[in-house]
Amino acid sequence: MTTNAQAIEQWGIFEISLNGPSEGNPYLDVELSARFQCGDRTVEPDGFYDGDGIYRVRLMPDVQGEWRYTTRSNRAELDGHTGSFTCVAPSAGNHGPVRVHNTFHFAYADGTPHISVGTTCYAWIHQTEELQEQTLETLKTAPFNKMRMCVFPKHYPYNRNEPPHHPFLEGADGGRDFSRPNPEAFRHLERRVLDLQRLGIEADIIIFHPYDCWGYATMTPDENRRYLRYLLARLSPFRNVWWSMANEYDFMLKTIPLELWDELFQTVVERDPYHLRSIHQAHLDYDYTKPWVTHASVQKWDVRRSREWRQQYQKPVVNDEPEYEGNIPHTWGNISAQELVNRFWITFADGAYAGHGETYLHPEDILWWSKGGVLHGESAPRIAFLRRIIEDAPPGGLTPMDGLWIWSRISGSSNGGYRLIYFGPHQPKTWIDALPDSGRYTVDLIDTWEMTITPLGTFEGKQMIDLPGKPYMALRIQIDG
Amino acid sequence: MTTNAQAIEQWGIFEISLNGPSEGNPYLDVELSARFQCGDRTVEPDGFYDGDGIYRVRLMPDVQGEWRYTTRSNRAELDGHTGSFTCVAPSAGNHGPVRVHNTFHFAYADGTPHISVGTTCYAWIHQTEELQEQTLETLKTAPFNKMRMCVFPKHYPYNRNEPPHHPFLEGADGGRDFSRPNPEAFRHLERRVLDLQRLGIEADIIIFHPYDCWGYATMTPDENRRYLRYLLARLSPFRNVWWSMANEYDFMLKTIPLELWDELFQTVVERDPYHLRSIHQAHLDYDYTKPWVTHASVQKWDVRRSREWRQQYQKPVVNDEPEYEGNIPHTWGNISAQELVNRFWITFADGAYAGHGETYLHPEDILWWSKGGVLHGESAPRIAFLRRIIEDAPPGGLTPMDGLWIWSRISGSSNGGYRLIYFGPHQPKTWIDALPDSGRYTVDLIDTWEMTITPLGTFEGKQMIDLPGKPYMALRIQIDG
Repeated sequence: MTTNAQAIEQWGIFEISLNGPSEGNPYLDVELSARFQCGDRTVEPDGFYDGDGIYRVRLMPDVQGEWRYTTRSNRAELDGHTGSFTCVAPSAGNHGPVRVHNTFHFAYADGTPHISVGTTCYAWIHQTEELQEQTLETLKTAPFNKMRMCVFPKHYPYNRNEPPHHPFLEGADGGRDFSRPNPEAFRHLERRVLDLQRLGIEADIIIFHPYDCWGYATMTPDENRRYLRYLLARLSPFRNVWWSMANEYDFMLKTIPLELWDELFQTVVERDPYHLRSIHQAHLDYDYTKPWVTHASVQKWDVRRSREWRQQYQKPVVNDEPEYEGNIPHTWGNISAQELVNRFWITFADGAYAGHGETYLHPEDILWWSKGGVLHGESAPRIAFLRRIIEDAPPGGLTPMDGLWIWSRISGSSNGGYRLIYFGPHQPKTWIDALPDSGRYTVDLIDTWEMTITPLGTFEGKQMIDLPGKPYMALRIQIDG
Repeated sequence: MTTNAQAIEQWGIFEISLNGPSEGNPYLDVELSARFQCGDRTVEPDGFYDGDGIYRVRLMPDVQGEWRYTTRSNRAELDGHTGSFTCVAPSAGNHGPVRVHNTFHFAYADGTPHISVGTTCYAWIHQTEELQEQTLETLKTAPFNKMRMCVFPKHYPYNRNEPPHHPFLEGADGGRDFSRPNPEAFRHLERRVLDLQRLGIEADIIIFHPYDCWGYATMTPDENRRYLRYLLARLSPFRNVWWSMANEYDFMLKTIPLELWDELFQTVVERDPYHLRSIHQAHLDYDYTKPWVTHASVQKWDVRRSREWRQQYQKPVVNDEPEYEGNIPHTWGNISAQELVNRFWITFADGAYAGHGETYLHPEDILWWSKGGVLHGESAPRIAFLRRIIEDAPPGGLTPMDGLWIWSRISGSSNGGYRLIYFGPHQPKTWIDALPDSGRYTVDLIDTWEMTITPLGTFEGKQMIDLPGKPYMALRIQIDG
């Protein structure tokens, strides 16, 4: 079969659909891939069985031009199919996948800066359709452009419900059969990833996690390997995917020892040439300097160490869990909105990135951090305000200022003639440190909680400037010319 | 000359006064000491020249009974004087000097617990008499029982005034003559130490400091050695003295290298058998495990590490500068009252001690942290409230609870059936961790900012208890029986 040439936008999805064997176990028995070429560029993604005798191979074409392909399979009916398509310019709003930019920062593939401001609804796709739609509705006006979310359902405090779609089918013993993925569940996942894409939100897909009562967290190494390749075959072509190998991987070391994590990471590198890759810890830091890791996705309450982690890893630092705004009895989920906003500002003003979560007790256990729904807290609008300020900074990202000992106590970073200083619980009534030594510059006072920006005027040369003597203020400085 | 037997209370001051040579330089040329004996106890303090031909040797008798002494000197008129006195029971309110108790805590020599709650008025004795009297008036109702204060005057931002009494006399060149101490200045210091003693306040005497324009910070090693022995001869007999070898010793390493600090420390050990000894750093931690150090006197903003320092030093940790409440442009002196109170609670609820300072801009540069005067801030009453709560805990001091990972994020310590948990910016609406596993216990809710204690009732066995979901709360738990 030869598919007729189609036009596919750059970073869109081209899909080959083939009919093949449905007997036996296609997941275990059928090998399928396609070799795609466009000029010097060659990519060979895996295909996958999507049920009902249908096999698919997907590609996210990342260069414009004529692409040709040939399928390969251990089954004659799937082998040797060829075809071509034309990859054309991306449509408006399609900037391609997010990549590391300027060592410590992110940009879309077309060069557009990406200021990562994440949130977390781990199991939102495993709730009722109604609740999922409400989550999407909330996200429309929320400040978040990344969502941490799990492929597998979640079993944990406040999470005792069965998912509507299990990623693996029920086996003869009533448990999960890890040799039979459920195409419907994965199609559902894909739909939700596309929903996020339409909202400009990156899907930070958590491949493994320990919160489990169904067996997902205790699959065998080979089951893990097969599942990973299946997931990559299906999801890699979605441009808004980030890969998070795990949440709290160190709670799973009995079933996935460090060597296997490293191997699985390398599988992602081999099978997905496009997307960001990290892993999220509980207590045992993963070594983010390993070459297959693109950025550090950490869980750290002590955000004043953000500079240290940047220095240590020489990669973007995304603190996906600087504790959550909320009031549950778990210490990771009960800081005040003011404290979370403070931690966000410290993190961003030291040239790193933070993620949000919300864990307020709810009569029906609908906590945003896991199930989505609506936001109840006070941090989100302040995070929106912060995001606008960081997005208004010059492109290329902020670099921590150094040379002054104060940077162990307050936050400050710069980009060219732009400087951002954040005081946190400090409340100076006058200030001079880190102001420009000479030349003209303008200063804005930012009240991070009240969300106000007050121009303080234009100054010439280093001089003491007056401030209100209140905590949670920041200064934005722009040197003229 | 034989002095007639007098009655001196335990930990009071016995003083031998002798007439001797006033020609030449008694400070350099005359050696004087006295050997005191009471039963098996022998102490041989240095004497000192107090001007006008008068020499003194002082002793703080620390055991009750008959003490006898003989003076020794390289001058015949001062040598071989003998005498005796009776050391009797201490008067009311005299508990003796403060000592280390129970590894990490303090108690007076008579066993009375001492909960160290310090403040800082570095140069208060170098201000006008009127201002000094105002400082003492403020201290009468303030919550502090330790005062960090310098022997030498201070030259620093907000500190540009000459002291009324220079510890060393003016030399021929108009500078200080470090071979001629000024007895009047030291008598003044002693008077102020006694004033503090009457208020129940320990004088944490800072022997050296770098904030100087007179030469005190750049004396030669021999000048430093002589000055130290002179100071010890005069001040050691005051029971409310603590020795702080320096403030920010690491800013003086050019003139006092580490070996000399160590030597000077050992001089204190040899010449003063009574008092606590530490040293205060800026950026370079002193090794507080050295045997001549009795406790760690640190400057640390990141108070959540208090447990770590306890563990590291195995001595009491006194964080004398967890930054100051204020609004000056210096980052060490502009945190909010709420943040300082938060840092105090974290420190005390993790079994360590903290010191206060206040640095609000003042039209006449009278900042409490240096000159004293009156308090302008909001932390002092909250620190008073905290002190009462810690003093109400069982004697012996609090030990950090362990065995739960939450202790890296919130604070908690215990003593027998007593437990204190402090949540800081955490605001749980319900709570169960670290509550007793079984038995009956009562719980009080403490609002550390509003200074209220609300009984939550009596509970039986580990169970979830309801809290208000507000930050800066603490729980006090007392297990029955």
